[in-house]
Amino acid sequence: MVSSIKDGGTFLLNCEWSDEELDAQLPATMKQLIAKKHIKFYAIDAIKLAAEVGMGNRINTIMQAAFFKLADVIPYEQADEYMKAYAKKTYGKKGDAVVKKNWDAIDIAISGLRQVNYPAEWANATTGAEAIKIEGGEYYDKFIKPVLAQEGDKLPVSAIEADGTCPTGTTKFEKRGIAVNVPEWDVTKCVQCNMCSLVCPHAAIRPYIVDEGVAPETFVTKKALGKQFAGKQYRIQVSPLDCTGCGNCVDVCLGKCLTMKPLATQAKQEANWEYAQTIPEVDETILNKANVKESQFLKPLFEFSGACAGCGETPYVKLVTQLFGDRMMIANATGCSSIYGGSAPTVPYTTNDKGHGPAWANSLFEDNAEFGFGMNLATTQRRAKLAELVTELASKLEGDEKAVCENWLATMMDGEKSKASSAALAALVEGKDCDLCKQIASMKDMMVKKSQWIFGGDGWAYDIGYGGVDHVLAQGEDVNILVLDTEVYSNTGGQASKSTPTGSIAKFAASGKKTRKKDLGMMAMSYGYVYVATVAMSANPAQLLKAMTEAEAYPGPSLIIAYAPCINHGINMAHSQMEIKRAVACGYWPLYRYNPSLEAEGKNPLIVDSKDPTESYQDFIKSEVRYASLAKLFPGKAEEAFATNEADAKRRLETYKKMAQ
Amino acid sequence: MVSSIKDGGTFLLNCEWSDEELDAQLPATMKQLIAKKHIKFYAIDAIKLAAEVGMGNRINTIMQAAFFKLADVIPYEQADEYMKAYAKKTYGKKGDAVVKKNWDAIDIAISGLRQVNYPAEWANATTGAEAIKIEGGEYYDKFIKPVLAQEGDKLPVSAIEADGTCPTGTTKFEKRGIAVNVPEWDVTKCVQCNMCSLVCPHAAIRPYIVDEGVAPETFVTKKALGKQFAGKQYRIQVSPLDCTGCGNCVDVCLGKCLTMKPLATQAKQEANWEYAQTIPEVDETILNKANVKESQFLKPLFEFSGACAGCGETPYVKLVTQLFGDRMMIANATGCSSIYGGSAPTVPYTTNDKGHGPAWANSLFEDNAEFGFGMNLATTQRRAKLAELVTELASKLEGDEKAVCENWLATMMDGEKSKASSAALAALVEGKDCDLCKQIASMKDMMVKKSQWIFGGDGWAYDIGYGGVDHVLAQGEDVNILVLDTEVYSNTGGQASKSTPTGSIAKFAASGKKTRKKDLGMMAMSYGYVYVATVAMSANPAQLLKAMTEAEAYPGPSLIIAYAPCINHGINMAHSQMEIKRAVACGYWPLYRYNPSLEAEGKNPLIVDSKDPTESYQDFIKSEVRYASLAKLFPGKAEEAFATNEADAKRRLETYKKMAQ
Repeated sequence: MVSSIKDGGTFLLNCEWSDEELDAQLPATMKQLIAKKHIKFYAIDAIKLAAEVGMGNRINTIMQAAFFKLADVIPYEQADEYMKAYAKKTYGKKGDAVVKKNWDAIDIAISGLRQVNYPAEWANATTGAEAIKIEGGEYYDKFIKPVLAQEGDKLPVSAIEADGTCPTGTTKFEKRGIAVNVPEWDVTKCVQCNMCSLVCPHAAIRPYIVDEGVAPETFVTKKALGKQFAGKQYRIQVSPLDCTGCGNCVDVCLGKCLTMKPLATQAKQEANWEYAQTIPEVDETILNKANVKESQFLKPLFEFSGACAGCGETPYVKLVTQLFGDRMMIANATGCSSIYGGSAPTVPYTTNDKGHGPAWANSLFEDNAEFGFGMNLATTQRRAKLAELVTELASKLEGDEKAVCENWLATMMDGEKSKASSAALAALVEGKDCDLCKQIASMKDMMVKKSQWIFGGDGWAYDIGYGGVDHVLAQGEDVNILVLDTEVYSNTGGQASKSTPTGSIAKFAASGKKTRKKDLGMMAMSYGYVYVATVAMSANPAQLLKAMTEAEAYPGPSLIIAYAPCINHGINMAHSQMEIKRAVACGYWPLYRYNPSLEAEGKNPLIVDSKDPTESYQDFIKSEVRYASLAKLFPGKAEEAFATNEADAKRRLETYKKMAQ
Repeated sequence: MVSSIKDGGTFLLNCEWSDEELDAQLPATMKQLIAKKHIKFYAIDAIKLAAEVGMGNRINTIMQAAFFKLADVIPYEQADEYMKAYAKKTYGKKGDAVVKKNWDAIDIAISGLRQVNYPAEWANATTGAEAIKIEGGEYYDKFIKPVLAQEGDKLPVSAIEADGTCPTGTTKFEKRGIAVNVPEWDVTKCVQCNMCSLVCPHAAIRPYIVDEGVAPETFVTKKALGKQFAGKQYRIQVSPLDCTGCGNCVDVCLGKCLTMKPLATQAKQEANWEYAQTIPEVDETILNKANVKESQFLKPLFEFSGACAGCGETPYVKLVTQLFGDRMMIANATGCSSIYGGSAPTVPYTTNDKGHGPAWANSLFEDNAEFGFGMNLATTQRRAKLAELVTELASKLEGDEKAVCENWLATMMDGEKSKASSAALAALVEGKDCDLCKQIASMKDMMVKKSQWIFGGDGWAYDIGYGGVDHVLAQGEDVNILVLDTEVYSNTGGQASKSTPTGSIAKFAASGKKTRKKDLGMMAMSYGYVYVATVAMSANPAQLLKAMTEAEAYPGPSLIIAYAPCINHGINMAHSQMEIKRAVACGYWPLYRYNPSLEAEGKNPLIVDSKDPTESYQDFIKSEVRYASLAKLFPGKAEEAFATNEADAKRRLETYKKMAQ
């Protein structure tokens, strides 16, 4: 951080450390440079200060004030005036309280700024903090490490694969350690609900099952509940350096066994995390994947992404990978999910202990559904060819060998069953000296039924990519579309989409969205042969699991619309999961599943899973800044818009209920 | 036709004339050329021959056989063999009967071919048929006439307007005279229902109201029914040279007063048609435009297009222009409607006696809804500015003058009322020596409320342009979308669209469409603030008129989906209107109107206008070649597909009924 600073330059570090602690916390090389270059070294504990003035984790205003104080580009009195005027202009519509907090932040920044009096001996420092050693292998050393060190422009073109692919499972090498506080687990209180694992946006807290007596002493466990775990031990393990400290796990914990603690106090957990990574994965065949708790024993094949702390989208993405990741292909629309899904140099999608994990690619905003449809078309054609070959082989064999072929043919369209039958088929043909067997063996990647997914946000699914979403759904092919619905273009900074509801403020809807939220689910249901579900994770996790497993099993197109809180909503993301719960409880976000398979059984395909609202609708929307700011700007208009918003939600729920009768 | 032929060349003419008649029917210049060039002149009455073998008006096979007989490019025996084999290949899937007819057509062509023994004196002919004199004005003489004569490539660029606009109302100069038979009106039987006028795809038959005793003797009339026509006379007048002879008027005629007669026998009607064009238009203010009969006294501002005889689309387009044409702007998607809507050098859109008519433009297949939305945006902005200016003017005036401004402001959003108030406003400001008045006068084109329409077929609305259709509907602005639903890409030759129902054969669906018809109306209804209606002209004209007037009056987005039979359906287009009637009677095409205005009144916005089916669904679809050919190719599959098709139609109707309760 100080290698490019000039002699006598100024360096400001945001940290919680005292002067004495800095000696131990800074690397030796850094201390040397600071002293040798006679740097004016300042420190500020911006996070503590932000908390003091009620700004939560928002430190930008504090750091800005500190910058102006130290940089001295204009007299500080003037800077102070400008910053406060700008804060009023920027945050005025969010209310006086927000303006006040920003003004307080500016004032407290100056009082909290201190010069560090470091000893001259730092020039010859040999001790200090050690960098975390990462054993990431050749690809890490040759590609990821230089890029993370901002030296990617020094890499030769040959450092990148010529075919455009790149290894997955590399976010685990980042060890960002950005959390201020991380959850501490109380083994005595834990009821083994696994809710923490379900909602964690970063897969940084997971349940582990270990044999009795094998784990190190610090790896405290308790008797595992559940018949299939008889004689085994259970533990929740946090990865402190991968956790972003959002705190949603604490909110949803049924046993109240999690407490947020400063990262520094949880250092020993790192070793436990490392140990947990060596524990064999739970055998998926003993699990009921459609069960909330049991699903969480499956390894997340999406972990440690760069999404915001408390992100409402990533827990859904993670869950899909737990359920189907080992045989999954994903087409990802441009948007937040393409950014946290694959920002060079690391990839959060990863593999299980068999080396199986999602294949992922990102296409354009406007053609992602078609992109995924094309992936599926290729798979379908290749598997049809494989089925032809296996049919031919079966006709030439007898007895057990014939049965292997026939079993594969009978189960080839079943995701779970095709795993075992494919293993048997592979064993039958591999190494055999016959042309047909060799040809079949060469198509081993097509043996297990693929799970084709198409991911994107509402900007994609409701707007820019909707023509394609509609066209792909209409084709009747077996693809699964997951819409991460934040009701706004999240990644580009909060523009209104057709998913944005009436009265919500967004870019291009500065005086509140005038029209109602588009009913994407109803549109898809109108085909009659599209599986459609709305889901809301912590509001009804059991319904979520049902929807995901039904959608994937349905042999036609599926659409899952997932409610995902976002920083653009103007809420405290530490409680994003609670916000989901409130959205359903007040009737803002209805839950339903439309399963065309039921119609074939003579049943009504639509099941409304929402209960009648139990909480105040208006209280809910007015607690989110995206709505509250309209009430501040145009109180009269806002009341009318909020009433329309609520009426529309009611009208929808009534329509669904009528259809479900 | 013979100017480019070489000396001793062969010329074949399809006509009904004998050798003797040809002397009178051919122009003198043509006869001279035939004789001087020693042309081998042949004639054939292909239309008579086609009728004899049951081919209706299809003469292509007959003319092809005649060509091979005369051209002698290969021995005729061989050509005969090839043609018959090809007919089997092409029409085999449509059934043996169709193949047999084509074979018969080939055989009869040869027997009906005769050489014309013209006299040598033709070389000096001075008498013969006179070309029809057309008084089309300068634009006709300098642009249309050369292009129609296939000499457009000799025109200078300056013959075309630099701004891309061109005059409308020019198809009336074409006088194509392509009908074999045209309707003859029996004044004694006519009940004045005006249905002939409503359904005519070419606006070639219209009712006229004249004062007693003023018309020429041949212009036979009868006492006009209706209070507003007391003392007036009524007549139905055909334009024989603009009629295409489809015969749909005969089918729908309530008094059975129309009979199809050979064009040659109706020559005197031409003078009556010319006279009718001089009759003053009926004053629109005495008409109830929402009434089927009365709407037909309004001049069609879309006439004599190049659409197929019996076209199911054009009667809808024509009706919209009768109702709103004088204040209408149209954005037209690419497709049949853009071809018959504006093929150079002529334009079927025209003006009334005040010089008012639709402004029309065609954009791309993929952005037409947006194109129309943009037109509307411009109008809306300009009219808002005009309202500002008139408000300012009102504040400076008093008494009657002030009232004129205020009345305009009060009625500016009402299509009909704004006509009178705009006339008054224009009279107030025009010629006044005040800057504000001049500014207002300069915006005279914005005074009357515009009626913004967006036209296209199902290939556009359901598929390629759907993303835009959805986005525009969602915006809540006052635009009217008319979908001419032929359930197939008509203009490009019959490719399947998402509107194509299960089991219908189309290009890209050669073994019958697998998926169901998309429910575009349901999708639009899901917004709650979009006016949506399905219509079917002759099945329920009153409902059609209701839908069109309600849609136009609704101050938000409207979508009208019109069932339009097409040559691609494989039906006899002479009865396309009866086909519409059957489609509704059997439940194939449900009728409904979803009017959001009703919700504000506390009523259910959805009204199902369809009655329960009274005719056989299967009989209906199996009578159309698009379905029947599937039954021929894959009988088993067809039964299943047809059952799905019917079940889907039933499911839809039940869903609508449930919603309407």
